[in-house]
Amino acid sequence: MNQPVMALPWRTSAWLNTSAPVDLEAQRGHVVVACAFQMLCPGCVALAIPQMKAVHELFSPQGVIVVGLHTVFEHHDAMTVTALRAFVHEYGIRFPVGVDMPAADGGPIPQTMAAYRMQGTPTLLLIDRSGQLRRQVFGHIPDLHLGAEIMRLVERQ
Amino acid sequence: MNQPVMALPWRTSAWLNTSAPVDLEAQRGHVVVACAFQMLCPGCVALAIPQMKAVHELFSPQGVIVVGLHTVFEHHDAMTVTALRAFVHEYGIRFPVGVDMPAADGGPIPQTMAAYRMQGTPTLLLIDRSGQLRRQVFGHIPDLHLGAEIMRLVERQ
Amino acid sequence: MNQPVMALPWRTSAWLNTSAPVDLEAQRGHVVVACAFQMLCPGCVALAIPQMKAVHELFSPQGVIVVGLHTVFEHHDAMTVTALRAFVHEYGIRFPVGVDMPAADGGPIPQTMAAYRMQGTPTLLLIDRSGQLRRQVFGHIPDLHLGAEIMRLVERQ
Amino acid sequence: MNQPVMALPWRTSAWLNTSAPVDLEAQRGHVVVACAFQMLCPGCVALAIPQMKAVHELFSPQGVIVVGLHTVFEHHDAMTVTALRAFVHEYGIRFPVGVDMPAADGGPIPQTMAAYRMQGTPTLLLIDRSGQLRRQVFGHIPDLHLGAEIMRLVERQ
Repeated sequence: MNQPVMALPWRTSAWLNTSAPVDLEAQRGHVVVACAFQMLCPGCVALAIPQMKAVHELFSPQGVIVVGLHTVFEHHDAMTVTALRAFVHEYGIRFPVGVDMPAADGGPIPQTMAAYRMQGTPTLLLIDRSGQLRRQVFGHIPDLHLGAEIMRLVERQ
Repeated sequence: MNQPVMALPWRTSAWLNTSAPVDLEAQRGHVVVACAFQMLCPGCVALAIPQMKAVHELFSPQGVIVVGLHTVFEHHDAMTVTALRAFVHEYGIRFPVGVDMPAADGGPIPQTMAAYRMQGTPTLLLIDRSGQLRRQVFGHIPDLHLGAEIMRLVERQ
Repeated sequence: MNQPVMALPWRTSAWLNTSAPVDLEAQRGHVVVACAFQMLCPGCVALAIPQMKAVHELFSPQGVIVVGLHTVFEHHDAMTVTALRAFVHEYGIRFPVGVDMPAADGGPIPQTMAAYRMQGTPTLLLIDRSGQLRRQVFGHIPDLHLGAEIMRLVERQ
Repeated sequence: MNQPVMALPWRTSAWLNTSAPVDLEAQRGHVVVACAFQMLCPGCVALAIPQMKAVHELFSPQGVIVVGLHTVFEHHDAMTVTALRAFVHEYGIRFPVGVDMPAADGGPIPQTMAAYRMQGTPTLLLIDRSGQLRRQVFGHIPDLHLGAEIMRLVERQ
């Protein structure tokens, strides 16, 4: 996604690790790093979650907002909010995690995932201070690249 | 556990990846490697499950029986059989997985876990051809050691 | 090293992977990343060299100058220029590598290493476009942090 | 190499970490694990050397003889005995390391490497108690497999 566009609002049905939903529009002025994941997706668990925990630790003191989005598109009866809460506890996730709103028509793909046309999990979203989506990456991005990309957005006021 | 004792029978409420429960007594004559785990235990997911998959691939052609035991002692409402089935599918586990029988008194520790006095997950059990428990290890055991320990039991007819 | 100071010039006796020595002063206007290493230092080989290769691949297209400095302070008769040349070939290092000038008095610490008061290898140097030393790190720095720190200097014109 | 044959004697020009050369014939009655390596071979340094250190730690108390063979077939002027001595010190290698005897005709391939028709480094040799070569592996062998293979030879008296 090279042509920056405004990041679409998230549609969520629940939030963990926060007293109030993280409204994307309310984050203007901050860089936002979001990770769409599923708690039973091996690549998410092995790579994306540890990476996001490190991103949160390094960049949140610099004003970056780090968010998880639980975009369940398979095994819906296994990846409930109750299960997610246990997962978040066991993996020591401290940043807010929103639950992507199930499809209105009962289909498998939740609403935010569909709106962003994500291809699967994990998917990383980098959003700049003005609310533009600067990067959407399906799969793994090396730490060195991710640190650089986030810092570029941090430095551009 | 240096003094070999007969491995206690498993008490299970369900099995995955097998048409019939794996009865321990019926395995006499085979070396048995069992791994007690929880699907939301990070150490199990990162280390024990990949290791058991490799053990299964290497040793099952040599007649070794490899089994998982889902010993849920926390987050019971998250780690249901439905959730376990999704986990087993996503992580590509091919060996039989038994669900440890919940405590009769409604306590958190399931029956097999209690009988073996396991301290947590993952816990590895190595059982020889005569049904004796030769090793019970809580935590991680390096691949080099595990390969050697299993082979020692395989070689001792 | 929090108080930025001008990076001291390097004193070198030979260069590999370049037709001319990399003079630090001539790099003004560029961010410079230098890694002081020894070819027989296990931490350098396992962590710093692969990291610098990745830094070179990611950042040199963005104008960052990446340099190795072979700061031999032990086993001098083993880590000769001949041996270094074989090492650079075998490990696929493409960036310029300078050989730190041996001490004039025959002591073990080479001159650039002494001037920077390095504590050992690997030591990372981050130098901004104006020639100021912004960071000097002995030991390992995680990729996420390093990517961010280099990009911060890249963004500051 | 499936058809066991007697392991050929080693031809060496020097030894480290031992007061006397390790004569293969004198090891009858012991399982012998040998690793042919080069100190500037990246795969040897990253994988084979750490693996052999672990093999030495685990199996030498069980009577297994662990040996390194420095089979230099390239960069001869870099991988001298002096350089090897520094390497062995820096990497904390405690088992005996023999230097493969240079070719009599001045060719690049040393004599033991040639006799065993090794394809490169690292190459692992597993020799049973009767002196038969049971396995010769070029490249990496996973720890689980290696632990099993060595133990099989240990168990067969």
